[in-house]
Amino acid sequence: MSTQEKTAADLLVCGTILTLDDKNRIIENGAVAVKDDTIVAVGPAAELEKDFTVKEELSLEYGLVMPGLVNVHTHAAMSCLRGIADDLPLMTWLNEHIFPVEAKLSGEIVYQATLLSILEMIRSGTTSFCDMYLFAMDVARATAESGMRGWISEPLYDFPSPNYGDPTAGFDYVDELFHRYKDHPLITIATAPHSTYTCSPDLLVKLKEQADLHHALYHIHLSETLDEVKTVTERFGCTPVKHLEDLGLLDSRVVAAHCVVLTEDEIDLLARREVKVAHCPESNMKLASGVAPVPVMLAAGIDVGLGTDGSASNNDVDLLSEMDTAAKLHKVHTLDPTVMTAEQTLAMATRGGARLLGAEDRIGSLASGKKADLIVLDLNQPHLTPLYHIPSHLVYAARGADVVHSVINGKVVMKDRKITTLDEEAVLSKMREIAAGF
Amino acid sequence: MSTQEKTAADLLVCGTILTLDDKNRIIENGAVAVKDDTIVAVGPAAELEKDFTVKEELSLEYGLVMPGLVNVHTHAAMSCLRGIADDLPLMTWLNEHIFPVEAKLSGEIVYQATLLSILEMIRSGTTSFCDMYLFAMDVARATAESGMRGWISEPLYDFPSPNYGDPTAGFDYVDELFHRYKDHPLITIATAPHSTYTCSPDLLVKLKEQADLHHALYHIHLSETLDEVKTVTERFGCTPVKHLEDLGLLDSRVVAAHCVVLTEDEIDLLARREVKVAHCPESNMKLASGVAPVPVMLAAGIDVGLGTDGSASNNDVDLLSEMDTAAKLHKVHTLDPTVMTAEQTLAMATRGGARLLGAEDRIGSLASGKKADLIVLDLNQPHLTPLYHIPSHLVYAARGADVVHSVINGKVVMKDRKITTLDEEAVLSKMREIAAGF
Repeated sequence: MSTQEKTAADLLVCGTILTLDDKNRIIENGAVAVKDDTIVAVGPAAELEKDFTVKEELSLEYGLVMPGLVNVHTHAAMSCLRGIADDLPLMTWLNEHIFPVEAKLSGEIVYQATLLSILEMIRSGTTSFCDMYLFAMDVARATAESGMRGWISEPLYDFPSPNYGDPTAGFDYVDELFHRYKDHPLITIATAPHSTYTCSPDLLVKLKEQADLHHALYHIHLSETLDEVKTVTERFGCTPVKHLEDLGLLDSRVVAAHCVVLTEDEIDLLARREVKVAHCPESNMKLASGVAPVPVMLAAGIDVGLGTDGSASNNDVDLLSEMDTAAKLHKVHTLDPTVMTAEQTLAMATRGGARLLGAEDRIGSLASGKKADLIVLDLNQPHLTPLYHIPSHLVYAARGADVVHSVINGKVVMKDRKITTLDEEAVLSKMREIAAGF
Repeated sequence: MSTQEKTAADLLVCGTILTLDDKNRIIENGAVAVKDDTIVAVGPAAELEKDFTVKEELSLEYGLVMPGLVNVHTHAAMSCLRGIADDLPLMTWLNEHIFPVEAKLSGEIVYQATLLSILEMIRSGTTSFCDMYLFAMDVARATAESGMRGWISEPLYDFPSPNYGDPTAGFDYVDELFHRYKDHPLITIATAPHSTYTCSPDLLVKLKEQADLHHALYHIHLSETLDEVKTVTERFGCTPVKHLEDLGLLDSRVVAAHCVVLTEDEIDLLARREVKVAHCPESNMKLASGVAPVPVMLAAGIDVGLGTDGSASNNDVDLLSEMDTAAKLHKVHTLDPTVMTAEQTLAMATRGGARLLGAEDRIGSLASGKKADLIVLDLNQPHLTPLYHIPSHLVYAARGADVVHSVINGKVVMKDRKITTLDEEAVLSKMREIAAGF
């Protein structure tokens, strides 16, 4: 075949391809061809090399090419507070350490801290994240500049915000977010009532109306702790889940983070309403909140994704190690080694996360027509040799540092572990200055 | 001071020094001076540079110098079985997957697989390990060649071994181990009755006599699962711990791996007898064995170290991530975020491990007169910036790949993540060949 008959593409990524597609295909000596922001072919490298002319090729002996990971619950900018206080009761941690520093935050600090967290996310294989944090306009700005894909939301609650001030001003701020990022290739805006214990019923309802107007996600902390359930039950006579149901707010665009404390009836209800659940095992462990009943939720047909939460309560945003912990935690909690298999856990961090975000048609697997969000891991390492079963290695042995290349929306954002979109040293240096001022 | 008045040393390692010594000193802009196999000074870099002439200097901007990690329970050679089977009930996993492959092992395979595991251990900050596996002579050979520090033991049980054959031949094999490695600078031999459910009382007693003759450790799996406790109780009318007590075998040189299923009385007994406990949280989680009562054991004054177990049930030998999991697991299991602080957890993986091995006078902290076993981590990374509290970062955020240099017994075994004692590519390549034959 002559060059004239070949199709032009921008990028060819070669290696063992773990597609996680409908047929769960694994292609040895495979390749993914990318044109603009889209995957245009997935198949044997020899075929794709015949079919396409490309501007750039990424390849690696023992490279594993797979969909980028999806982190469904983060407060990215909390990277600036990582390790400032640990091993404390939740309320002491929040009231005496986190809230006083958060009161000092500014848009600029949040921007810098989000860049820092995005560096860490890209370097550990994440290509999409679903965030909720103060100064969301600056979170979105950092995300767009980094070439990261983000679902961004500003948390609203009944008390004044260090960002927009009076609660009523929050709606205008969120409107402005929707306006600015309408049809943005990387940024999708969501609404974020902080929780049922910090938001009045009126605020909860109005934010759902605002979300629905934009067909947007409704991102909320839900049933994270026993204390939360107790507080809400005392105040409203029912649990947080039942409270949202009574207000008519539960549907398939609700992303409920944590869901640690649930009854079986509540699990059935969440399943019937097609509510999506963001599971954050490491944060729930570190804050001693409890163990979310994920195997039961999965069996009930609930879409569960994996989140790291903020890195002040984790303390990292590495989804590869989060998968490891998730699988092991549920085995020991149920005393059943067969729950949460490597395959199920890997699905939560990829396609399950994409489904949670309503983006399964665009991300979470490698197939022609999908957005080109993919990562390459170097398997030529002691802890990944020999290789019997790829999902096992990804869940139980791989770590963030094994990711060498990352492509988001067709753009190579990391090559040979060097971030191409940001000046890493400048971000680190700026963060040291900021932390010195806290 | 002129050069003539300086003392000659071999190596100076500069950075922030986390000594973990009696005063828990942290020295900014510090240095550790090494002569032969021993630390000869720890202090401010400016002072040590005045006092010593050195042949080699290791330094790194934002480098953290700390004692090498101590892995107190491993089956290193099981690296060749990592990921061959996961997510199965324990007995299915053992009988249908692990034992059939273990029957095919040879000294050469164990040698190669131990090299592989040692590569991974060095690359993730471990400088000492306490191992129990078939063909221990080959484990010891691999350890000595790697420049690793190891406590090595051959497991004995009532049935024939793929290594030495008939159980009675096991004692001669262990005698030969003691003989060959007497006074070896890196290798210490221990005895290893596999467990109370696989060893007759007679075997248990005779191995203790052999251990005591050499003042050696007695390394045994103990109370790992409910099934084990049930089996032993049915057979001997008492629990595994009580069984060892009745045989008069519990003392300060017993290293009991796992100790998941313990009563309060048994914890008191282990404390009184000064038995040492090797805690392996990730393996206990993955195999769904349960959660060892570590906070209670620590409160009772028991010396607890941290182990990874074999990488077929973990599936790695990275003690940095094992610390993270350990701290979080006990918080969520007790629903108390204050248990297992970063400091306590770090102590388990360093000085606590050294104490368990009876080697606290030689390793586990950085102080003049101790053996030079130390590692250097690169803190100039997104997930370790900013830095508020070193133990927090080490336990909750650092990963194996953050370790850049490693020194064992005064020898630089890894420099800039390149292993100096082994041909890494050759080990990986050889392991791929071996695995293809299973």
